[in-house]
Amino acid sequence: MTSRAPLPPPVAALFPPRDERERIDELLGRELAEATARVVAGPVMPTLERERLRRELEPFDFARPRPLEELIAWAIGVMEQGVVHMNNPRYFGLFNPPASFPSQCADRISGAFNPQLASSGSSPAPVEIEAHVIRAFARRAGLPAASGGHFTTSGSEANYTALVCALTRAQPRFGTDGVRAFPGPVAMYTSRACQPAWFKIAHHAGIGRAALKLIDTDSSGRMHVAALEAAVKRDRAAGVVPVLVSPTAGTTGAGMIDPLAECACIAREHGAWYHVDAAWGGAALASERLRGLLAGIETADSITIDAHKWLATTMGCGMFITRYPQTLSEAFRVTAEFMPSSN
Amino acid sequence: MTSRAPLPPPVAALFPPRDERERIDELLGRELAEATARVVAGPVMPTLERERLRRELEPFDFARPRPLEELIAWAIGVMEQGVVHMNNPRYFGLFNPPASFPSQCADRISGAFNPQLASSGSSPAPVEIEAHVIRAFARRAGLPAASGGHFTTSGSEANYTALVCALTRAQPRFGTDGVRAFPGPVAMYTSRACQPAWFKIAHHAGIGRAALKLIDTDSSGRMHVAALEAAVKRDRAAGVVPVLVSPTAGTTGAGMIDPLAECACIAREHGAWYHVDAAWGGAALASERLRGLLAGIETADSITIDAHKWLATTMGCGMFITRYPQTLSEAFRVTAEFMPSSN
Repeated sequence: MTSRAPLPPPVAALFPPRDERERIDELLGRELAEATARVVAGPVMPTLERERLRRELEPFDFARPRPLEELIAWAIGVMEQGVVHMNNPRYFGLFNPPASFPSQCADRISGAFNPQLASSGSSPAPVEIEAHVIRAFARRAGLPAASGGHFTTSGSEANYTALVCALTRAQPRFGTDGVRAFPGPVAMYTSRACQPAWFKIAHHAGIGRAALKLIDTDSSGRMHVAALEAAVKRDRAAGVVPVLVSPTAGTTGAGMIDPLAECACIAREHGAWYHVDAAWGGAALASERLRGLLAGIETADSITIDAHKWLATTMGCGMFITRYPQTLSEAFRVTAEFMPSSN
Repeated sequence: MTSRAPLPPPVAALFPPRDERERIDELLGRELAEATARVVAGPVMPTLERERLRRELEPFDFARPRPLEELIAWAIGVMEQGVVHMNNPRYFGLFNPPASFPSQCADRISGAFNPQLASSGSSPAPVEIEAHVIRAFARRAGLPAASGGHFTTSGSEANYTALVCALTRAQPRFGTDGVRAFPGPVAMYTSRACQPAWFKIAHHAGIGRAALKLIDTDSSGRMHVAALEAAVKRDRAAGVVPVLVSPTAGTTGAGMIDPLAECACIAREHGAWYHVDAAWGGAALASERLRGLLAGIETADSITIDAHKWLATTMGCGMFITRYPQTLSEAFRVTAEFMPSSN
């Protein structure tokens, strides 16, 4: 056996020793606390000059490393000037409340352990916690005990997942052969007051933006159920396959809740997946006083809720919840005959 | 004017006052430092009993709030037992190195400011920093100065974005009419050693898993160029539209780099988008000594690099880089004739 030199220690700039990490952690905590105090008393809107920032960024490259403390002070200063401050008490934006302190603590724990979530074998703890939270919301919404789902980066990713599940369930050959497996063009239905990200979703799912049918709203901004029914019937008569009906619970513009139960009936009657986009309004499920506003959500095939909205977690934290977890698994499977996989 | 009672203060459990936040921040820092020290000396693999964790999770619900300090200690304990530890020196996994300390600091700053990244108007600072980093990698790869891109949650999301861009560029009506706008079935090409998430990607993009053509590899595990060319020609003769050729730079199983320049030629000749999946190997661009291994990447239409792999950031941090930023914008636009948008 040849003798070997010991491995070199990790690069100190990236993996400093414990005392150095603790010193910088304390510095960072202090600087953030002071910045937070200034933010609460300062302007809500960004004051940053973008041209100046661009000039400052120019010399940042691979060749010239900078001391971490200098970078921390710089980054905090730039963020202080360069974002809308949701924890300023004069911030009146409806969608994104300040991120709660417990969720900031959770982010720190997550950053320190940095779990690899690609398999439950490598991260059983976060995977079980995720499943528990998803089941709690599913139960709260009135879905069956066997429901499932997962966290997503956003409500849009969750809505997109709903469309993929709908397509996968509507046509058994969709997963293998794609949109061409349907006998005709497909369509999905939401209202004119919907989240406009649905256009991207339709584009990315290969059904096309034209497959997104925007139903008129009534005088209160809620989806017009008679108009929905007429549109679905007209499309079916023309050979179009209705795959998804998605009322919104908390529209982007006005926070209106579409008539969920009526939309559910129309979806059922025409064999479409019934998805509730409760990205904004879903947090009402946690309130005994308000959850009744979401009546009709309990028959949903799937639900979107953004925890980074009224559940006040840090971004991005969406949830996709479905009563058909097996369809979800089918849409996300990575096994193949010739390729072993532990899932 | 009626007199009004002042607004109640924020819920203290979610938004505690500064001194309480600082006290808990310090406690959290101390507990994490101690856990990190234990992790380095402890087992690499999870020791958690999942059944016990499930029982522990049962009583966690909306009805019984718990003190934050109790939750922090609990969460750290569970994570310590319940994930693979990448910063244990006996962890030999290739893909995910320990998360560097500077990236953990950056996560803390991000959590404290919690920027809303949906528009550059609300978050000019992070948006400019993102653009700067993407441009730096594009330049390093040899792409033109006008290249662009964005961060993604993962290499899979970046690869998926490449496919959507390829489809959008190959067929001007794809965005509106979907996969049916193509005159025949489409196909994308990668090797048998590719990341298996491509199956999900093909499913979700509506082209179907069968559209993913896995080319044989040679004895070293690199894509067989003659087999690629033959497959593309055979498919074209059968009316199939080749939309994407994606060699891998750092295969999942063995870290091999496919013959990039040769794949590029075949993609060009047949009008397909040339994407390099350098999720794993892309970090070599930062090294003067190693970047030559990626010769051929400089003509890529797009590139995937995972910063959470060998750039040692916390997860999830993928990058999508393209020489056609206008195609990327086209694929992600949310404006519509009837709907004003600030982008």
